[in-house]
Amino acid sequence: MQENEDQLVRKLTALWHSATGTVTGPGDDCAVWKSVPAGAVVVAKVDAVVEQVHFLITDAAAQVGHKALGRVLSDFAAMGAVPQHALVTVGFPFGSRAGGSSRWLKDCYRGMAKLAKQFEVGLAGGELTASDQIWINVALYGYGKKKQLTLRSGGKSGDALFVTGKLGGSFPKRHLSFSPRLKEGQWLSQFGVNAMMDISDGLGQDLPRLAAASHTSFALQPEQLPRHRGCSVAQAVNDGEDYELLLAVAPRQCDDLIRQWPFNSPLTRIGELLPNNLNPVTHGVECSGWDHLKK
Amino acid sequence: MQENEDQLVRKLTALWHSATGTVTGPGDDCAVWKSVPAGAVVVAKVDAVVEQVHFLITDAAAQVGHKALGRVLSDFAAMGAVPQHALVTVGFPFGSRAGGSSRWLKDCYRGMAKLAKQFEVGLAGGELTASDQIWINVALYGYGKKKQLTLRSGGKSGDALFVTGKLGGSFPKRHLSFSPRLKEGQWLSQFGVNAMMDISDGLGQDLPRLAAASHTSFALQPEQLPRHRGCSVAQAVNDGEDYELLLAVAPRQCDDLIRQWPFNSPLTRIGELLPNNLNPVTHGVECSGWDHLKK
Repeated sequence: MQENEDQLVRKLTALWHSATGTVTGPGDDCAVWKSVPAGAVVVAKVDAVVEQVHFLITDAAAQVGHKALGRVLSDFAAMGAVPQHALVTVGFPFGSRAGGSSRWLKDCYRGMAKLAKQFEVGLAGGELTASDQIWINVALYGYGKKKQLTLRSGGKSGDALFVTGKLGGSFPKRHLSFSPRLKEGQWLSQFGVNAMMDISDGLGQDLPRLAAASHTSFALQPEQLPRHRGCSVAQAVNDGEDYELLLAVAPRQCDDLIRQWPFNSPLTRIGELLPNNLNPVTHGVECSGWDHLKK
Repeated sequence: MQENEDQLVRKLTALWHSATGTVTGPGDDCAVWKSVPAGAVVVAKVDAVVEQVHFLITDAAAQVGHKALGRVLSDFAAMGAVPQHALVTVGFPFGSRAGGSSRWLKDCYRGMAKLAKQFEVGLAGGELTASDQIWINVALYGYGKKKQLTLRSGGKSGDALFVTGKLGGSFPKRHLSFSPRLKEGQWLSQFGVNAMMDISDGLGQDLPRLAAASHTSFALQPEQLPRHRGCSVAQAVNDGEDYELLLAVAPRQCDDLIRQWPFNSPLTRIGELLPNNLNPVTHGVECSGWDHLKK
């Protein structure tokens, strides 16, 4: 028997838990939750994954869900913020792919729910809508201490540039199963780095963005780039969808940063920020990155 | 010259203003804003409009933007909440409709921005992504007093049912230009109605939802329904996309409600909530409503 909208929504939302502080979860016109801790500011982010652009229908639905939530968790990581409540909107071709709809969506929600549980994120609400193409939009809300949140714009000329993890070769599989660097980002923010962002579009596009936001130029040491096995420097710079963190730290803090870094994933120095009036130094590496608007 | 993603995002976000309390607006990994007023709880909602489902490409882009934001404002109205910050995600076929992309998006953002200004909502951030079909997802964040927010579930057997405005005939045009009943909803919430929701899927679908959430049944007086000119009772019940408010109020408050109602739009009594063990009384009117999952 074909489920109606309300029945399907109830089955999907039952796959998640609500976060601490939830007053009214899925099922009413809006979601309601308690305010952030005293002294904290609100941190929020939306992002979407779209079939054919960010995933293929042949990819496992649970991994697509993992990616949809993982991408916004990665943005929270980049600020050192704490996520709490997610609102999920899904566009799905209900009419034309009848039968498989419900199963695909449940697997997708299960993939999101598993990652949500790991990082203590709750489902506060969402919507389903008909669409020719599948897409999943996640709005994530949380908090941080205003003075501690790390922006892209805090970098200074002379700062050392580091990246977490390894870069390149995220397709065809790793872009669906990456682990957002949330704990690493929170630690780095507390340590006191000057600027941070996540590498979603590729270092070649995201490093110029961080430098521009910080009113600086940059030097990249391509041979220093931590690369996944079998990846070229060009891949490490331009493949995109790495979801590692790029950060700028004052030179005097570099030794402490390296010594105190408590995580298993590597933290690698890859360059530095330069005065704004200098041209970027990339030693011949083209920084093209990934433009979401090109398919 | 073709704009790249960053350039287009900057032009679009420049069409909006940030709301009071914004700490970090569009341009960083996440948006940051100050917490809700002391003693208030957070209210949040996401919803999307999709080409061919909620609008046509031949509709004016500014009206599509109006509808995208108007729908979530209508959900805020239904709780009596105060909206503050919007995060907007847009899927757009950039590759295949080159040239017109930028203009359509700017008009759409202008339509949203005009409505946002009217209700003092700011743009906190957003994303653009490639997609075969156009869709616009709005995540809206705000606040309310916990004891004052009106849920669907607060109705009691014996409560009188009212609707704001007139119903039916929202297609082909009114669904794109409706005025969300935000002020009315806030007033009703403060007045102290027991339950409220917005009529987005049609009274025939939304009334049973409100009754079910309130663990009641209902009686509808079809001849009492306030109808738009030329609309039949069946249209008033089932067309959907009215974005009027449906509310349940204690019988002893009805006279005060009617006497004190300060708005030009009508407020009409249309039935009552019944004990849960009774069958709904609809005097022969079929309550089918609109299922988002059917196109």
